[in-house]
Amino acid sequence: MNFRLIIKVVGGILLVEAGGLVMPLLASLYFHEDTWLSFALVAALCAVLGFVLARLPAGKGDLMQGRDGYMAVAVAWVGLSAFGAVPYVVSGAIPHYVDALFETVSGFTTTGASILTDIESLPRGVLFWRAETQWMGGMGVLVMFLALMPRLGGGSVHLMRAESPGPIKSKLVPKVGDTAKILYAIYIGLTAGEIIALRLAGLGWYESVTHAFTTMATGGFSVKAASIAAYSSSPAVIWIIIVFTFLAGVNFSVIYAALRGSWRQVWRNQELRLYTALILGSILLVCLDLFIQTGERIGDSFTDATFQVITIMTTTGYATRDFALWPTFSRCILVGLMFVGARAGSTAGGIKVSRLLIHIKNLRRDLGRIIHPKHVSVLTMDGERLDEGVIASCHSFLVAYVLVLTAGALIVGWDNLGFEESFTASLTCISNVGPAMGLLGPTANFSILSHLSKIVLSLEMLMGRLELLPLLVLLNPGTWRDK
Amino acid sequence: MNFRLIIKVVGGILLVEAGGLVMPLLASLYFHEDTWLSFALVAALCAVLGFVLARLPAGKGDLMQGRDGYMAVAVAWVGLSAFGAVPYVVSGAIPHYVDALFETVSGFTTTGASILTDIESLPRGVLFWRAETQWMGGMGVLVMFLALMPRLGGGSVHLMRAESPGPIKSKLVPKVGDTAKILYAIYIGLTAGEIIALRLAGLGWYESVTHAFTTMATGGFSVKAASIAAYSSSPAVIWIIIVFTFLAGVNFSVIYAALRGSWRQVWRNQELRLYTALILGSILLVCLDLFIQTGERIGDSFTDATFQVITIMTTTGYATRDFALWPTFSRCILVGLMFVGARAGSTAGGIKVSRLLIHIKNLRRDLGRIIHPKHVSVLTMDGERLDEGVIASCHSFLVAYVLVLTAGALIVGWDNLGFEESFTASLTCISNVGPAMGLLGPTANFSILSHLSKIVLSLEMLMGRLELLPLLVLLNPGTWRDK
Repeated sequence: MNFRLIIKVVGGILLVEAGGLVMPLLASLYFHEDTWLSFALVAALCAVLGFVLARLPAGKGDLMQGRDGYMAVAVAWVGLSAFGAVPYVVSGAIPHYVDALFETVSGFTTTGASILTDIESLPRGVLFWRAETQWMGGMGVLVMFLALMPRLGGGSVHLMRAESPGPIKSKLVPKVGDTAKILYAIYIGLTAGEIIALRLAGLGWYESVTHAFTTMATGGFSVKAASIAAYSSSPAVIWIIIVFTFLAGVNFSVIYAALRGSWRQVWRNQELRLYTALILGSILLVCLDLFIQTGERIGDSFTDATFQVITIMTTTGYATRDFALWPTFSRCILVGLMFVGARAGSTAGGIKVSRLLIHIKNLRRDLGRIIHPKHVSVLTMDGERLDEGVIASCHSFLVAYVLVLTAGALIVGWDNLGFEESFTASLTCISNVGPAMGLLGPTANFSILSHLSKIVLSLEMLMGRLELLPLLVLLNPGTWRDK
Repeated sequence: MNFRLIIKVVGGILLVEAGGLVMPLLASLYFHEDTWLSFALVAALCAVLGFVLARLPAGKGDLMQGRDGYMAVAVAWVGLSAFGAVPYVVSGAIPHYVDALFETVSGFTTTGASILTDIESLPRGVLFWRAETQWMGGMGVLVMFLALMPRLGGGSVHLMRAESPGPIKSKLVPKVGDTAKILYAIYIGLTAGEIIALRLAGLGWYESVTHAFTTMATGGFSVKAASIAAYSSSPAVIWIIIVFTFLAGVNFSVIYAALRGSWRQVWRNQELRLYTALILGSILLVCLDLFIQTGERIGDSFTDATFQVITIMTTTGYATRDFALWPTFSRCILVGLMFVGARAGSTAGGIKVSRLLIHIKNLRRDLGRIIHPKHVSVLTMDGERLDEGVIASCHSFLVAYVLVLTAGALIVGWDNLGFEESFTASLTCISNVGPAMGLLGPTANFSILSHLSKIVLSLEMLMGRLELLPLLVLLNPGTWRDK
């Protein structure tokens, strides 16, 4: 275990966080809010500590082993959240540290579950920081870190592997740092595009920026207590958010291919097709259900269904309606989408569409094998052979997902809120969606939970964001046994 | 596809059903109920039809291919249920055929979900048939069939494979027919033991026989509307049922080993250990939850917890309390146990403890592989090497389970009863447990569901009982494509 290198990574992360804190500091100053002092203090603390840690002499050899990569990622995310929560407490916006930590983890993991009861009463600088944590978390703070500091020896590829979502890791271009820069450029470009679009649709700069931050991160924190329902009189805003949310749920390498004009590659992408098919099918079913069971106008049903299906499937979690009150069928669809999540290589959570595709392909192969036991078949994806190791790791992932989901639901169950609440709270956190159902629905919040539940759900958010394995690897006793 | 052989199998099954119908016929006569005529008519119909079909000349070659085995099993179970439902309708006990079919499928699959609203008002002959369907279904009508008619060429091993529960198929003794006879003898012996025990505890013969039938089948139909709560004043009855339910959830080959005195083999059995650990752990947690949250006496909490945990985990589904009203934590545990089910090679449903064990072993191996990518490790169970194919089929099974569970919950969701009801109704049916939660809890029934939901849930019960694959293989287009 290369502790020194891990400490260096954490130091770097703290420097990034110090940089990130400058924006809410400036926002506070601009809005004449006295919260600027909290941000200044914490930024200074992070900067000093980060500078010291990053300057420590590296240990023998800078080649990071797999275990060290996972450790660094886990420690970095926990550290990031631990320090990121401090401004909430210091500024008095969230008095209790456990609550602040929950909110910060929910931010950095782009979940969007909140313990805030009265959002609009908070200083705008604080809400800006809240939105920015999602934006920072969205692309992965470490990808950002890699982009800024490409020289970390051979270890960076391990970091990248531990960090980036989805079953198949591929680099777009040979160098990890360059890949990170491309992804980052797409991310910033789309964010800028959405800011301008929202501004043109009539929103102020503050609301445009914060909502663009949380859309592109598939996070879902809003500066409005009513979430996007606050803009329900403006169809333009709703549809701008729908379009950008959909894009945020697409694998960024596909967007890169589209930008380079490789439409053939985009069209042939099986995951993109299944993602689109799932979204369109779900919209149709939810729209019909709402139209038949609530007697809404069909146009309203269509907009509501489209918005809610896309925002849930991409694990963003905005709301234009209180879908916790929707008919059971639509609620079941939304819960199913929470489980699946969006596409690998996007900023979304969930088990990912690509894994679902691999599971289904493998199931069909196995059914065929029962009938023709001697027939050997190889699975392919987008025309390329799927490694059996990838299929096996999808299996492990699913098992780990179900186990953590169940354990989380059990512990939240102790709060005695109800089965639907416990199950969906655990699901929404591990899938990084945000709102749950029932008493924890989109118009409610997580403040009613016990501290134990909040800590467990925070852990689930981290596990979900890091695709379970980094934290599970660290919890596995075998990891600490030397060969 | 060897249609003639499949027809012969169905013919044999109908003969077995005709034989099964003799017992409720006799019961009706004994109790002077005019329902005897319904049973006599249907028995005659099954006998004649079965005799004709079984006498048809066999086609070329009697070697059953895998596909034919699955087809035969699926057709046999559907046919058995279709004819078994007729007496309910003819006798007027259940007027609508869809309801009668649901009740019969729930019987043969040993699920125990019921659409009956007023059980005690029904003729005792009908309730006897209802209990007997579970007992027949319990050990698998086809294992019974195999025991009675051991000569069916090489095909019988395919039937056995398609029929018997659990991931690893092993014969206790070289001949399939002999294995079936041993399992059958254990089943009859335990049933007889429970009848005597219940009789000694003060129950009448009628109630002893019907409850022993539905205990050993892990079915859970009771002739009392209040289920086992009707006997809550008699701890002896409660504890007799607890003991026999636990035994019914144990792999019968372990019971065989115990009867032969191979205690070492029993002790070393990893699945048995995990099964016992899960039961003890769940009892402890539920007992604590009930004690703390409801203020019951600790003794009552312990009995309630023990009874309900065992009856749910073995997928029997009896109730001594309305556990749908229990605190959320206990309900979550029960739902988790519904998912797991009991042991492979027992009469229980669910994904089975052995599969859970394999999933966990595989997950741990994969976590190790992340750290030591070049380390090759082989999984073992009870000291023997686990074939990678078995692990892969557990993966497919889990995926199929989750997909069918989700699809079922979605369709039941259309009835708009609530998320908890839809999810647990689908779960309780695919796992062959019986009662669900909320409005479909142990003191309620499934009569409020739509016909569509009842048909879908009947299908799920069949899928669950046949371990998903027989029906999924038939639904897979690849099965019907000739090589």
